[in-house]
Amino acid sequence: MISIDTVYMQRALELSKKGIGYTNPNPLVGAVIVKEGRIIGEGYHKYLGGPHAEIDAFQNAIEDVSGSTMYVTLEPCSHYGRTPPCAETIVKNKISKVVVATTDPNPLVAGRGIQVLREHGIEVITDILKDEAMKINEIFIKYISTKKPFCIMKTAMTLDGKIATASGQSKWITGEASRTVVHQLRHRVSGIMVGIGTILKDDPSLTTRLDAIEGMDPIRVIVDSKARIPLNAKVLNLKSNAKTIIVTTELADSKKLKALKEKNAKIIITPLKNDRVDLPYLMKQLGEMGMDSILLEGGSELNFSAIESSIVDKVIAFVAPKIVGGKLSKTPVGGLGIEHLSEAYVLDDLKVSIVSEDIMIEGYPRR
Amino acid sequence: MISIDTVYMQRALELSKKGIGYTNPNPLVGAVIVKEGRIIGEGYHKYLGGPHAEIDAFQNAIEDVSGSTMYVTLEPCSHYGRTPPCAETIVKNKISKVVVATTDPNPLVAGRGIQVLREHGIEVITDILKDEAMKINEIFIKYISTKKPFCIMKTAMTLDGKIATASGQSKWITGEASRTVVHQLRHRVSGIMVGIGTILKDDPSLTTRLDAIEGMDPIRVIVDSKARIPLNAKVLNLKSNAKTIIVTTELADSKKLKALKEKNAKIIITPLKNDRVDLPYLMKQLGEMGMDSILLEGGSELNFSAIESSIVDKVIAFVAPKIVGGKLSKTPVGGLGIEHLSEAYVLDDLKVSIVSEDIMIEGYPRR
Repeated sequence: MISIDTVYMQRALELSKKGIGYTNPNPLVGAVIVKEGRIIGEGYHKYLGGPHAEIDAFQNAIEDVSGSTMYVTLEPCSHYGRTPPCAETIVKNKISKVVVATTDPNPLVAGRGIQVLREHGIEVITDILKDEAMKINEIFIKYISTKKPFCIMKTAMTLDGKIATASGQSKWITGEASRTVVHQLRHRVSGIMVGIGTILKDDPSLTTRLDAIEGMDPIRVIVDSKARIPLNAKVLNLKSNAKTIIVTTELADSKKLKALKEKNAKIIITPLKNDRVDLPYLMKQLGEMGMDSILLEGGSELNFSAIESSIVDKVIAFVAPKIVGGKLSKTPVGGLGIEHLSEAYVLDDLKVSIVSEDIMIEGYPRR
Repeated sequence: MISIDTVYMQRALELSKKGIGYTNPNPLVGAVIVKEGRIIGEGYHKYLGGPHAEIDAFQNAIEDVSGSTMYVTLEPCSHYGRTPPCAETIVKNKISKVVVATTDPNPLVAGRGIQVLREHGIEVITDILKDEAMKINEIFIKYISTKKPFCIMKTAMTLDGKIATASGQSKWITGEASRTVVHQLRHRVSGIMVGIGTILKDDPSLTTRLDAIEGMDPIRVIVDSKARIPLNAKVLNLKSNAKTIIVTTELADSKKLKALKEKNAKIIITPLKNDRVDLPYLMKQLGEMGMDSILLEGGSELNFSAIESSIVDKVIAFVAPKIVGGKLSKTPVGGLGIEHLSEAYVLDDLKVSIVSEDIMIEGYPRR
């Protein structure tokens, strides 16, 4: 039987998801205040710099919260950051019991929020819907513990493994519903990364286009070791609050870099690695810039480099139930490839969903 | 709410499946006899030439069947074939009501069985679980109405669309559970078809290997336009009740064909079509030989020819959640490929299942 704690925590998790796309690099957090079997307050972390979920719930409470139970999806903070520590506010509000889904992976907090609560005589229960809560904050957990962005490789192929027809046509392999999911992903992450091949072939704008909500454009990260990007490329001439980063190497022409800077592009120069951009180095740089997540929508060459250099944390693969054939048609992951099947990059925690006419497969490459 | 008719028909359908692999080219049929709310007899069509399901159910009845209701997954036959017509036996046994899942697509029967029953005052209800019954007999329905085998194209690829690594390693892309499903398919069909490329590369035996039941070996059909198959190939030197057919063209050397015949191989010569075997012509030949179903386990070239020439009725694609990369690694369907996505071969009636660690996607190419 499902416990009442689980029901309230489920609600808190649902609330937390309302912040998707607006809180990066902060976590998604939801909170519910329950008194005598009634929900008297709900809240969530709405945007970076905004009130934490607990504070939002207090602000929304419709009656006196003293003596009530708070359900919160992440351990309340105990440190002074952008806002005062939530643990103290909970104590001040005379909450008698706090139910927490997961402790905070942030080394600055790490159990200390719970400790503060207990020291003030508040009963604390942990690990209610812990797995779900960790999954919702998988981006935050990776980022806070490594300071590198969580990288999601997104691919879309036919049932015979092609990302384009033999003549190179790729619009559209998947249906509209799948493409909406991709735009939701773009809204969620801080950056979107493609290779120069994609820019030269498709000249995409790489913005978030969603009907239902105001989509957040991701920062566009273009991997372009020789800075071949044309100055009239769409990503250099957009009306968007998010900037475009050109990632290049010593192989780039300095005059071209100057021209790109004049186009308001940010330039990151990485060391050469096999005559290409050093992707792990790049991830470190992007992390230092505060980017907690990257959606990799690479062509097959960039995808293989990413997989090979172990920067990919999650794979989201769309499969369209159609067959196009073609010995030379491109596949999602190219490059040299591995030699032995025993060296294959296997995905764990597989999840398979039907997205209208397509199939969506998600998993985590095993290390 | 589910009706009691549906419950008994479900049971009859379950019984029919016990015949899988043994009845070709006959249909799978199950029957249940119900009297005063109790099942008093069950039967199914066990093997080609054996009693029909209705007769089997009568033989298994544990009490007098007069006045009872018979549930049968396919319209009882009205013609003298290998056995006397079931409709007459039902009348003779004084059954008062017959519930039928689907009418017989066989032009020799086509509603006449039901007509015989009604003429004798038996109440007949049709179309109970019709869709399920038609799906179970999709092979029979295609075969009886076209006299050509139902062709299932089976593929197995990685999540990045490869059927082998860059070095050509393909054992094994999928896990053990998926390979067992393939052996169940081999058991079910009358023939298995591969191209000469697969023989030269893997030298497979193409037999049915199952632990739980005595697997029926399919007839092996090797598409080999120039008769390049080595005389020591495993498929020519097997201890198996099923024969091996070499499908070739005028491009084959006549001495080689003689040597193959001495190896007990059957030779089918088809006209040339784009310098290759004419697959639609072949399907007609195989149908005339009584083969109702073909499992196509081709390499990517044969698969494209099969898709392009519209001989494929069903696709069963296994996807292993692993990534191997490789610009030159082979994919399930090669050939020239189509140019425009609007010409893609789209699958209908999609079914997605999890088979242990792999994903199985089934569908029917739209005509």
